[in-house]
This record gives sequence, C-alpha cells and structure tokens, in this order.
Amino acid sequence: MKARITVTLKTGILDPQGKAIEGALRSLAIPGVESVRQGKVFDIELSDAAAASAEQTLKDACEKLLANTVVENYRIELL
Amino acid sequence: MKARITVTLKTGILDPQGKAIEGALRSLAIPGVESVRQGKVFDIELSDAAAASAEQTLKDACEKLLANTVVENYRIELL
Repeated sequence: MKARITVTLKTGILDPQGKAIEGALRSLAIPGVESVRQGKVFDIELSDAAAASAEQTLKDACEKLLANTVVENYRIELL
Repeated sequence: MKARITVTLKTGILDPQGKAIEGALRSLAIPGVESVRQGKVFDIELSDAAAASAEQTLKDACEKLLANTVVENYRIELL
C-alpha cells in the first residue's frame, strides 16, 4: 500500500526558503503571488504485512525522523 | 486564495535522498517500509485579483521556477 506524508512548517515559523521563492517569482513577473511557504512530501510504499498498522508505523516514522515536531506539522494520507 | 503545488520526481528517476531516508527508517526499526521518494510542496497565497487566472499563473510558476520538468512532475491544487 502507498502513503503520502506532507511536512510543513508551523504557522509563525519563519520560512526563508519560501521568502526566496516569493522574491524569485516576483522577479520573473509572475503576478499576484502574496506568500509562499515550502514543505516536504514523502511518498512511501509499505509492504502488505505492514498495512494493518500503517497509521501507527507512519506516525512513528514522522516523530522519529521525517518531521521536526518542534517547528513542523505533518499529515499522513493513506492512498 | 490558496493553492498547493506538489513537485515529485518522475517515475524511473533515481532518488538518492529517498533511498537515504529508506535506509534511515530501516535502521530505526520502522517496519514494512519498501520504498521512499521525496518531493517538495509549495503553499502559495494568491491575491484575489489573480484568482481568475490562478491556474495559468501557477502553471507558469511551475514551468519557470518551481519544477524541473525534465525530471519532475508537478500538480496544482486550488484550495
């Protein structure tokens, strides 16, 4: 089975990378962009044996490795 | 209005970062992970004036800056 994990910065946390992209879009004359925030996405393929406990497995993966929960939120979607 | 752009590597393109994450998850004893591929996500806030042509604006942004269309796919979601 497949899952997608999206990791984004929490509201209020400064995002210099997003700010840089915002500036770049402006200098490319892309109109109407007010703000950009960048995050990460992980497409994970799980073995069928792990499907039953997939949600818990992925939560562990996020807490231990994929997200820094001090400054980032994560969202798990099972596909 | 808000939009989310997801940029992922095309199928068949090697993803060393994903491979590294896969290895790290294995060494953390997270069970059942078969493969990981990493991508990027951009949360974009557009001005109301730009809403009418949002789809085209974001397509331009992807083609010109956010995605390398030789090796990456992008998906635009208007929220």
